[in-house]
Amino acid sequence: MATTETATLQSDSSESAAEVHPLDGVFSPKSVAVIGVTPTPNTVPFDIFQNILTSGYRGTVYPVAPGKRSIGAVRAYRYVIDIDDDVDQAVIVFPANVVDRALEQCGKKGIKSVIVISAGFREVGPKGIKREQRLKDICKEYGIAMIGPNCLGVINTDPAVSLNASFARKMPKVGRIAFLSQSGALCTAVLDFARARGIGFSKFVSFGNKAGVTEIELFDYLHHDDQTDVILLYLEELRNGRGLIEAARRITRGENAKPILAIKSGRTPQGADAAASHTGSLSGEDAICGAVFEEAGVIRVGSMEEMFNAAIMYTYQPMPKGDRIAIVTNAGGPGVMATDAAVRMGLSIPRFDQSTTDILQDSLPDTANLKNPVDVIGDARADRYTAALKAVLDDPNVDQALVILTPQSMTDIDSIARGICQIHEKAGKPIACSFMGATDVHSGVELLQEARIPHYVLPEWACEAMAKVQAVRQWRGQPIEQVQPLPVARDAARAVSAAAEPGYLSEDEALRVMGAYGLPVPRHKLCFTVEEAVEFAGEIGYPVVLRIVSPLIVHKSEVKGVALNLSNAATVRSAYDQMLRHISSVFPDTEIRGVLVRGMIPAGHELIIGAKCDPVFGPTLMFGLGGIYVELFKDVTFALAPIDRATAARMARRVKAYRLLEGMRGGARADIEGIQESLIRVGQHVSDFDRIAELDVNPLIVGPAETGNAVADVRIRLSE
Amino acid sequence: MATTETATLQSDSSESAAEVHPLDGVFSPKSVAVIGVTPTPNTVPFDIFQNILTSGYRGTVYPVAPGKRSIGAVRAYRYVIDIDDDVDQAVIVFPANVVDRALEQCGKKGIKSVIVISAGFREVGPKGIKREQRLKDICKEYGIAMIGPNCLGVINTDPAVSLNASFARKMPKVGRIAFLSQSGALCTAVLDFARARGIGFSKFVSFGNKAGVTEIELFDYLHHDDQTDVILLYLEELRNGRGLIEAARRITRGENAKPILAIKSGRTPQGADAAASHTGSLSGEDAICGAVFEEAGVIRVGSMEEMFNAAIMYTYQPMPKGDRIAIVTNAGGPGVMATDAAVRMGLSIPRFDQSTTDILQDSLPDTANLKNPVDVIGDARADRYTAALKAVLDDPNVDQALVILTPQSMTDIDSIARGICQIHEKAGKPIACSFMGATDVHSGVELLQEARIPHYVLPEWACEAMAKVQAVRQWRGQPIEQVQPLPVARDAARAVSAAAEPGYLSEDEALRVMGAYGLPVPRHKLCFTVEEAVEFAGEIGYPVVLRIVSPLIVHKSEVKGVALNLSNAATVRSAYDQMLRHISSVFPDTEIRGVLVRGMIPAGHELIIGAKCDPVFGPTLMFGLGGIYVELFKDVTFALAPIDRATAARMARRVKAYRLLEGMRGGARADIEGIQESLIRVGQHVSDFDRIAELDVNPLIVGPAETGNAVADVRIRLSE
Repeated sequence: MATTETATLQSDSSESAAEVHPLDGVFSPKSVAVIGVTPTPNTVPFDIFQNILTSGYRGTVYPVAPGKRSIGAVRAYRYVIDIDDDVDQAVIVFPANVVDRALEQCGKKGIKSVIVISAGFREVGPKGIKREQRLKDICKEYGIAMIGPNCLGVINTDPAVSLNASFARKMPKVGRIAFLSQSGALCTAVLDFARARGIGFSKFVSFGNKAGVTEIELFDYLHHDDQTDVILLYLEELRNGRGLIEAARRITRGENAKPILAIKSGRTPQGADAAASHTGSLSGEDAICGAVFEEAGVIRVGSMEEMFNAAIMYTYQPMPKGDRIAIVTNAGGPGVMATDAAVRMGLSIPRFDQSTTDILQDSLPDTANLKNPVDVIGDARADRYTAALKAVLDDPNVDQALVILTPQSMTDIDSIARGICQIHEKAGKPIACSFMGATDVHSGVELLQEARIPHYVLPEWACEAMAKVQAVRQWRGQPIEQVQPLPVARDAARAVSAAAEPGYLSEDEALRVMGAYGLPVPRHKLCFTVEEAVEFAGEIGYPVVLRIVSPLIVHKSEVKGVALNLSNAATVRSAYDQMLRHISSVFPDTEIRGVLVRGMIPAGHELIIGAKCDPVFGPTLMFGLGGIYVELFKDVTFALAPIDRATAARMARRVKAYRLLEGMRGGARADIEGIQESLIRVGQHVSDFDRIAELDVNPLIVGPAETGNAVADVRIRLSE
Repeated sequence: MATTETATLQSDSSESAAEVHPLDGVFSPKSVAVIGVTPTPNTVPFDIFQNILTSGYRGTVYPVAPGKRSIGAVRAYRYVIDIDDDVDQAVIVFPANVVDRALEQCGKKGIKSVIVISAGFREVGPKGIKREQRLKDICKEYGIAMIGPNCLGVINTDPAVSLNASFARKMPKVGRIAFLSQSGALCTAVLDFARARGIGFSKFVSFGNKAGVTEIELFDYLHHDDQTDVILLYLEELRNGRGLIEAARRITRGENAKPILAIKSGRTPQGADAAASHTGSLSGEDAICGAVFEEAGVIRVGSMEEMFNAAIMYTYQPMPKGDRIAIVTNAGGPGVMATDAAVRMGLSIPRFDQSTTDILQDSLPDTANLKNPVDVIGDARADRYTAALKAVLDDPNVDQALVILTPQSMTDIDSIARGICQIHEKAGKPIACSFMGATDVHSGVELLQEARIPHYVLPEWACEAMAKVQAVRQWRGQPIEQVQPLPVARDAARAVSAAAEPGYLSEDEALRVMGAYGLPVPRHKLCFTVEEAVEFAGEIGYPVVLRIVSPLIVHKSEVKGVALNLSNAATVRSAYDQMLRHISSVFPDTEIRGVLVRGMIPAGHELIIGAKCDPVFGPTLMFGLGGIYVELFKDVTFALAPIDRATAARMARRVKAYRLLEGMRGGARADIEGIQESLIRVGQHVSDFDRIAELDVNPLIVGPAETGNAVADVRIRLSE
């Protein structure tokens, strides 16, 4: 969050400047060979060579172009191995079918960093997948860090390097934002978009098919890159979700923390059909993605606009001390809209101290609104704006300020911009501006941009950006805990699942597993005769519940496999007989393992705790409102397992049903601590056993603290 | 939805061009007097006069400037009555304290249209409110249509008038969008913003304090204005919500239908404190506002960006036949993001016919994606774009197309734009574009804008705009029904409430009222002795419920005033005695009116039907999920009462709980027709009785069709 473009000294002493990161060769090579250059302008191969040559690159660039003596007056080589110099990096632009041979030559030449621009790999189907595997194999053999294939390339604006190894038209400005994109084409739009707003970049990477280097290694590099303050990511495909989350957790908190803003679009590797895959992702992976990103401090955004709006707020301005925003405007309407937006986004609108109000009263006309949002009135000129902005920034109740301007005929836009710039220099608190309109305000906006004061076309966007910076601040304030395994009877659980076939555990097995992990499982027994059932019922006390246990019956109530509220031995007897008779007649061939007897669970809220070993995220935990409302309101959240206490507490708070648990409408506070404990325990279980295809404690009946919670039903499905 | 700027003939024969609308003088005066002009440039009074003089106004403008012979070389008058000509319109720019005198002179002069620019009225407190009332009185006396006070003025771009009676810097382009704003300052920003995008306006009105002409009369004028295709409204304060909704209903459907897009920001007349009022509005009025706008075909938008994005889509392009969108892109990433957005917004992504796929295959390289979204690949030039766009538009499964372009080094942006323009000329289906970036794509974007092809910086915004046009289409497809009053025992209901004091009706009274209006009230009796209770219980059959009836006890269960599931005479007796004993001991002075006896209602879904006479919207109806989840998920919707059958059906469908009612997870379909009938009946009740401060049927227990629904509890509070 430095406010200048100069490099700051690395504070982490273990990462001295001398230490070489494995990706240093990708970003800061001393020499680059471009393999497959052609002499035809406006083709990718030529453009890339030309870009390196003309972007001010501080190293040496060698064109490799079989059959050409020179390219653009630079001596060309037939093969990379012919170059009589050390080569740190190769950029391969050959057609897909010969890339492997070029890559192999790079390996032989000892080149450790290769960017494969060429398309025609995984994205084109089976043949391409095979080609891509070949590249992977070669990289492994020679220890090559490969970016791509199927990408736009890499840009490093660091003046000490100044490398544009991409086919983007122009080199971006120097800045402190790193941008990583799986889509190459998007990069060109982003560069153009950023240039028009004066936004600069530290590193710019199109990583394409990520057959070699993935976003995870890039995260690690950028974490230690002292030119980068914030990391932006556009991702289409999560291959190693868990790795990404773990890397993000390291980066977004603690020493040298940097925020990550990410767009994750819908496509999954399974879905060639974008539409179908989208719908799929919305219901499943996408929901997990949103929650686990949040649990790793990754701020998920919906569009480029939103991403850059937040990124410039973070990089241009100091970190605010809190969420209180003052608004200064010459237009009531936009002031109200900004207030609406600020409150909706979770910022707060403080009242000013009396002394601030006094200053405002002295500086503004009678018709002005002295309360927050301050309305300096349509005919305000620079004097009023600066007086008001200074006053509100000096107020101890204000953490940051937003200045809104609409171009009235008397508005001296440039003077106002200059006034804001002056105050900004020593403000110490973040300032954002929204000079509304386009042409009229253009020169004023340029003055603000030059001074690195974030400017937004709409005041609402400024509020949204400020709210995202708050999210960064709050995330950093979260305690970092180590996951502490709780004492559990792991061997007892293992004994159950080791013996089990793939498919559902029976209810008594599932309860046993949950009991072994310390979940609040009610006392129960699998009975094989009616006498046994009556005896156990007498032992635990009436009323009791009978539940059929059969490997083929998953939905017990639908087949009359549940009898509730049995208040004496006689009703237990008749219910037992009736149940067995009914099920045997309806499903004559079903194996019945027995009848589970347990006590009635007192009424309470119905919650759900779910878990599974997800192919992308690994062991994953779910929590939310259970019963029929799970499906209707999807009031659930996710986290990667195992979890610590702080994460358990956040998961509980994140669902809307939390208000219910806290005791809404005068209801008693539920045993929230018990829920958190169960979450930790289920998380531990799904981490310990990698065969959990599906685990649902649904419902967990949650009562007040003195009663506690109880597992009313649990289903566990094991994979192979 | 004309695609040219020329006026279309009025199709509504009852509104011939010769007929004069009361607001014609506001928009098309033959002569204008500007009262209070000063000779100082860059002041509001001078600027307004100058704007009229230099905007190409086809009539005559007279400056009224006491003590000046001329203003800007135009002969000035001391008073408006001194002008020796008919004056159709006056624009008053005098200080607030003398506006009334100028207005009175206008009245005497026979001027029927006045625009009061001056501020210093209602917005400054009691003194201003008094001043404003004086203006209203004068308008009434002389029959003056007054715009303002406290506004920017009025613009009519019609070449036959060409009037800029405002202090906006420049006259906007001619267009078919009308913009109405309560905020004057916002207008200047909007004009600047629109100019930069080549967006024109038909009429542009800043109506300020709306002491005379309100948005409702303006709606009516614009409905009949053949220069206007779409109406945009920025509103801070809903004074006559019902009037606005009724006007909107007339305009947005039927003959000569025009869509209305509205921003309603948080401020209410009650709230000087923007923050406090905002929070208030979010919980109450704002929720009603959202739903009743929807029920009047008003599309509520959140920002200027969203508003204009939709407005240009609607006015520039023909109405699509359906919601199926084809996407053509040279960049996979943005294509996926657009697909995500389209699906999220409710558009559908069709599959192409085989013949389309064949054409695409012939025109595109092997690596192209021939499915929707069509990826013409990064190196595509105009030929590929036009071939693909033409093919998808010709496909019978496609209703509209979105073209996405990212500026690659080989992209011939202008040629592609020209190709799209050519196809657009005879496409007959809507086309939108997103040329992503800024500088690189600038000239291409200008070509599109000139051809009136909507262009969006982000593809997501194009999808959002297209989805809003779908909302217009769907709204127009809704049946227009007359509200048919159902036969009810209105007199019986009247007898109850006529006798009632302000405050809550007792339960038996409330049930009687609901019964009179035909709600499914279970058989019940207010009993005064235990014998009477036992006798009635025997009559209706066990099990029964007892409920205490006392004017001071609203929450019966909290004081043990409810006994459920009583299965025989003995339990009724003991419950009756116990209930009376308990309540008499806890509330010794409470008047107990009796004990209500009714049968148990079978289990079902808990819904809520609410109603009230709202100060802004009049009789208003609410529907949603009842019980404890009302507060948690706020799964409720609203409509103005009374309602027709189509509205009742839409209300039911609009809540998430509808899926539950339809029979989720194999559950039976609920008696949805019964719910709709109850909604209509409660709506009829709240319309018939204007003393309903609060009415809540909560819960309405909803069972499957064969069981039907039952009012389990109802509370009615009457006002004075």
